[in-house]
Amino acid sequence: MKLLQSILGNNLPADTAPRPLAHARLEQLTMPHWALGRLMDLAEDLAAMTGQVPPPVARKTIVTFAADHGVAAEGVSQYPAEVTPQMVRNFVRGGAAVNALAKVAGARVQVVDMGVAADLNDLDGKIISRRAGNGSGNIARGPAMTREQAVFCLEAGIQIAQDLSSETDVFGTGDMGIGNTTPSAAIMAVFTGRSPAEVTGRGTGVDDDRLSQKIRVVEKTLDVNRPNAADGVDVLAKVGGFDIGAIAGLILGAAALKKPVIIDGFISGAGALIAQALCPAALDCAVAAHRSAERGHFLMLERLGKKPLLDLNLRLGEGTGAALAMPLLDAAVRLLTDVATFGDAGVSRAEDDSRAPA
Amino acid sequence: MKLLQSILGNNLPADTAPRPLAHARLEQLTMPHWALGRLMDLAEDLAAMTGQVPPPVARKTIVTFAADHGVAAEGVSQYPAEVTPQMVRNFVRGGAAVNALAKVAGARVQVVDMGVAADLNDLDGKIISRRAGNGSGNIARGPAMTREQAVFCLEAGIQIAQDLSSETDVFGTGDMGIGNTTPSAAIMAVFTGRSPAEVTGRGTGVDDDRLSQKIRVVEKTLDVNRPNAADGVDVLAKVGGFDIGAIAGLILGAAALKKPVIIDGFISGAGALIAQALCPAALDCAVAAHRSAERGHFLMLERLGKKPLLDLNLRLGEGTGAALAMPLLDAAVRLLTDVATFGDAGVSRAEDDSRAPA
Repeated sequence: MKLLQSILGNNLPADTAPRPLAHARLEQLTMPHWALGRLMDLAEDLAAMTGQVPPPVARKTIVTFAADHGVAAEGVSQYPAEVTPQMVRNFVRGGAAVNALAKVAGARVQVVDMGVAADLNDLDGKIISRRAGNGSGNIARGPAMTREQAVFCLEAGIQIAQDLSSETDVFGTGDMGIGNTTPSAAIMAVFTGRSPAEVTGRGTGVDDDRLSQKIRVVEKTLDVNRPNAADGVDVLAKVGGFDIGAIAGLILGAAALKKPVIIDGFISGAGALIAQALCPAALDCAVAAHRSAERGHFLMLERLGKKPLLDLNLRLGEGTGAALAMPLLDAAVRLLTDVATFGDAGVSRAEDDSRAPA
Repeated sequence: MKLLQSILGNNLPADTAPRPLAHARLEQLTMPHWALGRLMDLAEDLAAMTGQVPPPVARKTIVTFAADHGVAAEGVSQYPAEVTPQMVRNFVRGGAAVNALAKVAGARVQVVDMGVAADLNDLDGKIISRRAGNGSGNIARGPAMTREQAVFCLEAGIQIAQDLSSETDVFGTGDMGIGNTTPSAAIMAVFTGRSPAEVTGRGTGVDDDRLSQKIRVVEKTLDVNRPNAADGVDVLAKVGGFDIGAIAGLILGAAALKKPVIIDGFISGAGALIAQALCPAALDCAVAAHRSAERGHFLMLERLGKKPLLDLNLRLGEGTGAALAMPLLDAAVRLLTDVATFGDAGVSRAEDDSRAPA
């Protein structure tokens, strides 16, 4: 609790001083004014997040938090819960999509067991173990976890950000947990006030019958638990999950370290909503990777105040969207480091350009 | 003319045989069905384009065609024409945005002088020279070039694709030429039947007055030249530009070589419209990099039958959008090469998954 309190106490908004510095440089580059649009916005944002011009972004770590969810027993996924540990083993072998896409991004993937309902002891040294339990409770029938477990998950995420910070400039969030779109939808309903039907999607791809069942489960979840939207820890404990709590913690931890953190898709977005509830300023360090195909994800991004970089109909999680967005951060920073200014290059400015140096 | 005719005669649609092969592999990957959406579509498309599974995409070349445009004299840009050669020198020094973004993509930038109205002889060996003239004619008052010059530009693009093919798996198109959004808008009006007001945008960022003037120039251009939409060479000759013709040629040449070609933004899209008019099947090898901020670009993409990968409010050209899209091609191919199948990884399939192996 002490770690969480100290982080929340010190989580200041991004440093605004480097923003005008980056902006001024970007305006002098040899191109029409702001012709690279959102890439230039991103360059400026990264300067503010890190407090540096140019912002360091070379070393990237995707942290994929795995956990099981008691609510899987309600038939909300088309995959059995045993897939969670199977996929953890797939990550460790480097055979999952996030491994493949991380390679393209030049990122490392760090898997964390937050409470997979299986014995993963043989993976010691290959994954980080921060188990909050043997899977969370079935939120359709009671809380996901105790308040203490919720704080444990948040602090685990913060601690991991701190532990990895000496080798990481940019974090990416990731998740693995059969059933975890259901708590994510519940969290979203709590914070956006939208109905379960509006925020519940097909997850791994359930059919119409199972989607109806899933919506009923989210309704029941909110009914049974009555989470308090004004208390992020309460929402996490009642209708969240271990993976989601750790993602929220990673975001808080990264923000405190002034490191950008790329938010993956729907589950990571639910983690970001928890982080936002605890400390709105922490979101200043977050970049939304993509708009997911999961229903209502755009409402989640709206609530987070984030415009996604990509829109590729993704709905996988694991950190795959974060990996795909990473090269855009490199590109944004290259504008600040590599592109000549009008003055340097002897290129004529626009006739009506009032920004031209005297 | 012989080269162009032989290419048009042999430009077959993409090889469809590898598509089901790639599709079958992608369906077996350890993830919910098609959970990486458009990235998986892209992997399948690349297999069809190249005729190979996995498709080779490692070696990338962005070809940036530079040329001047007589229509710049009509006040359609806020930059003076002298910026075209200045930017060519900036490319050669590696100081432009396309150089910076190509580095992130691991791509090479090849600059081609198609007819810059300046002496660039001192850049011999650093750029390719295929000058069709000393800038194209002012299309508001007459044709951009002769039919012979149009064929020359198309063949130059084809030839460059062939010359670079031994060191290139994927091409990207790029342009530099003050005034070149005006012929691009005119070409788009010809092929889409839209009015000049619908297809003419702010280019480098002109104000309202200059935009009105630019729309009038496009109207006059179409009036004076009356291009024949059924004849791509006629459209290029009457209302095009040297850079645009060479881009069209590069697309035709790449398609004939079964190499994917990433179409940059608005000017490259105009080149693609010319290529499409000459040989619709050539577009099978084209990938649209992004939806540009230039007005009407989405209508151009619609006409080309292409869904863009990115939408980042870009409006620079040079090949910058193509560079930004390139890592997504690497990512798509990694799905085919690096991701384990359910069988390989011992991961359980969905309960209702009829695609499971027997």
